[in-house]
Amino acid sequence: MGTPIRFALLGCGTVGSGVVELVTRNRKYLETRIGAPLELARVVVRDANKARTASLDPGLLTTDVASVVGAKDVDVVVEVVGGVEPAGHWVEAALRAGQSVVTANKSLLAARGPELLRLAAAHHADLGFEASVGGAVPIVRTLREHLVADWVRSLRGIVNGTCNYILTRMRDEGASFGEVLRAAQDLGYAEAEPSLDVDGHDAAHKLCVLAMLAFGAEVQPADVPTEGIRAIEPVDLRYAARFGYAIKHLAVARETREGALDLRVHPALIPARAPLASVDGVLNGVALQADAAGAQVLVGPGAGAHPTAASVVADLVDAARARRAGVSGLLTQGLDPARRAIAEAGMQEAPWYLRLRVTDRPGVLAQIAGALGHHRVSIEQLVQESRGRRVDDPSTEEEPRIIVFLTHDAIERDVRAAVRAIDAMPFVHGATMALRVEA
Amino acid sequence: MGTPIRFALLGCGTVGSGVVELVTRNRKYLETRIGAPLELARVVVRDANKARTASLDPGLLTTDVASVVGAKDVDVVVEVVGGVEPAGHWVEAALRAGQSVVTANKSLLAARGPELLRLAAAHHADLGFEASVGGAVPIVRTLREHLVADWVRSLRGIVNGTCNYILTRMRDEGASFGEVLRAAQDLGYAEAEPSLDVDGHDAAHKLCVLAMLAFGAEVQPADVPTEGIRAIEPVDLRYAARFGYAIKHLAVARETREGALDLRVHPALIPARAPLASVDGVLNGVALQADAAGAQVLVGPGAGAHPTAASVVADLVDAARARRAGVSGLLTQGLDPARRAIAEAGMQEAPWYLRLRVTDRPGVLAQIAGALGHHRVSIEQLVQESRGRRVDDPSTEEEPRIIVFLTHDAIERDVRAAVRAIDAMPFVHGATMALRVEA
Repeated sequence: MGTPIRFALLGCGTVGSGVVELVTRNRKYLETRIGAPLELARVVVRDANKARTASLDPGLLTTDVASVVGAKDVDVVVEVVGGVEPAGHWVEAALRAGQSVVTANKSLLAARGPELLRLAAAHHADLGFEASVGGAVPIVRTLREHLVADWVRSLRGIVNGTCNYILTRMRDEGASFGEVLRAAQDLGYAEAEPSLDVDGHDAAHKLCVLAMLAFGAEVQPADVPTEGIRAIEPVDLRYAARFGYAIKHLAVARETREGALDLRVHPALIPARAPLASVDGVLNGVALQADAAGAQVLVGPGAGAHPTAASVVADLVDAARARRAGVSGLLTQGLDPARRAIAEAGMQEAPWYLRLRVTDRPGVLAQIAGALGHHRVSIEQLVQESRGRRVDDPSTEEEPRIIVFLTHDAIERDVRAAVRAIDAMPFVHGATMALRVEA
Repeated sequence: MGTPIRFALLGCGTVGSGVVELVTRNRKYLETRIGAPLELARVVVRDANKARTASLDPGLLTTDVASVVGAKDVDVVVEVVGGVEPAGHWVEAALRAGQSVVTANKSLLAARGPELLRLAAAHHADLGFEASVGGAVPIVRTLREHLVADWVRSLRGIVNGTCNYILTRMRDEGASFGEVLRAAQDLGYAEAEPSLDVDGHDAAHKLCVLAMLAFGAEVQPADVPTEGIRAIEPVDLRYAARFGYAIKHLAVARETREGALDLRVHPALIPARAPLASVDGVLNGVALQADAAGAQVLVGPGAGAHPTAASVVADLVDAARARRAGVSGLLTQGLDPARRAIAEAGMQEAPWYLRLRVTDRPGVLAQIAGALGHHRVSIEQLVQESRGRRVDDPSTEEEPRIIVFLTHDAIERDVRAAVRAIDAMPFVHGATMALRVEA
């Protein structure tokens, strides 16, 4: 079958171990698909004495990065270390040396994706990164190849499994964010330091990768107004359901009528019958609208050793096959992201969900409605929590009561201004929860 | 950018016109992705004087197949004629001449797919057929490339838009199959001769293509027990919903515990919360279970000029890029489908939905239950239509009454035998409707 194609791993945690297992298990088939044997050359780890998967020959372990990056006998470098540095330095060096690179590293892609794509092109190397977004969901391949003659108009993704898992359990169990976060941490679905996930930064990184592919846009996480899910309460999931919506943490990229890119990460209400509404738990999903191909939805496991490894190996096979044929660099050829106009934050129109707690006094609703109207926010419907049995108990007169509004289309900036005015009213308790409705 | 890559169309109906439009509209971008200009060389049609899309230079029209198939100045042949012959003859001749071929022809692929793949490999030509299954859904690419290191265990698809459209409208409007079929024909969603679609043959063709990719299996439509949707009544959709299910027309391929392939096309009940349950109207969807990548769902438009053309052009770009790099034949390299054991028809276990009409007489239910029990079919639940206001009206004593059963897991052959016994009972009106429940 010809000279073996040799790959090496930078890092060997759960994903790296999964890669070794899949390549070992499918050795023969992969050889026929590549046209040459695929050989693992070396595995760079911090501690060469730590036990790994049984599929891995311990003799391949090394702590020497230089034995892989730029090494003449390594064709493809698989980077599963994560983090912008030192991974970025290694990926850059590998590409400069003409090695193809496969990475699962969304932070690196978000920070330096377009630059690395150009570097790969200049050095006739492939750069595969399916595993950086959506775990096992083939969204990178679909955007890069399947929609090659198409124009993506909008894209909405559930791309953070931790947020989706927490929101799903909050909905199903009526439990608070804090309770479910702790349970998720115990199960390994959330990090001990959960901010990257639950505050939306991980989703913003992935959105940068998606925007690069779907819109050819060079964007940075700083371009993406980002909100997490800490402020969501079980009552919000209940009211959303009552109105016929689910609440999902979304990464959104869409073209405005003016041709600018509207980029955002935030929790939002989506119709209960929308395809993404049934993407629950640790699943990821992406719904997009393209000119020719129409509405597409892709759903699959968003994380996990084997799902992520499956995406890494698919890229590895592409890179190895190209290397075998002497045509590395073709897959991302012509992907040359450029700066694009970013839509001004806060200027997009959408219906909004507003949930607030007020002291139940005459005139309260009139004042709130007045503030909304003053800021050009028109009420589509409202639900006021019933007083229940507290009605005849004067001792609870000051017990706060929940009011929920759905508005007509309103400009975000106006909604925020109205909310600021409302939250300053003396009878309003805490901060108003304001969520967009994404159609 | 180097020598142009030249393609030609065999056929120029709606899909062919869509291909011309997409290639024309995206000329510049496709050139950067291919590394060479993509030029339309010729378009073979039956009537060169018929008007086509405005994007098409009428000077390119010809009725001469030989000016395209085997022509030295045509790199890629796009076959959008349809039907096994003469399309198969032309595709074969093109591959033998070393031309790459892109086709949307599921009948041809079902009849001769493995043979054509081998022919392409032998002549270092690419054979692309994304558009043959699922319209714009990237299922071929996902199976062929994304799941390259994976093992697909089961696959269930809604792959016939006509059936799905008819069942969706029957559910939403309570209308009969015949009424909705006529409406679908008026709208162009169903053919004047609808049998290929509504009797399940089109789905069986597509299942052969999917089984070839997902299981490396060389199967023929004759291997696929195939049922259509003509016998479904609105009452079935209503009872299914009452039990928490949707009825969808499915193409199913799965590995049995013994490693054989269980292949079937038929309407079935699926849980209302299953991802495919919300794939309505002319949408297509495929849900699959893979060892490493887990559960994946892909949904998109199943037909239409532009969605199908988008899939054709994606394959065309792959083939053109490979041609430009001088590495045609790589994409399907190693796909070498082989005969596999096919599970014996009728021997699979599943819960079943049975709906029948009986004359309301004492002892009827006991006799039916007896027949089921005799054939080892155990009842999980039953619903008997209420007599309503007919109860005190002796004139309606003989009015048939609907009984619906859900069974526990039962072997299909036993269910069929029980149904035959039941349908022979004098108080049973018409044929019992028997549908599998697919978990």
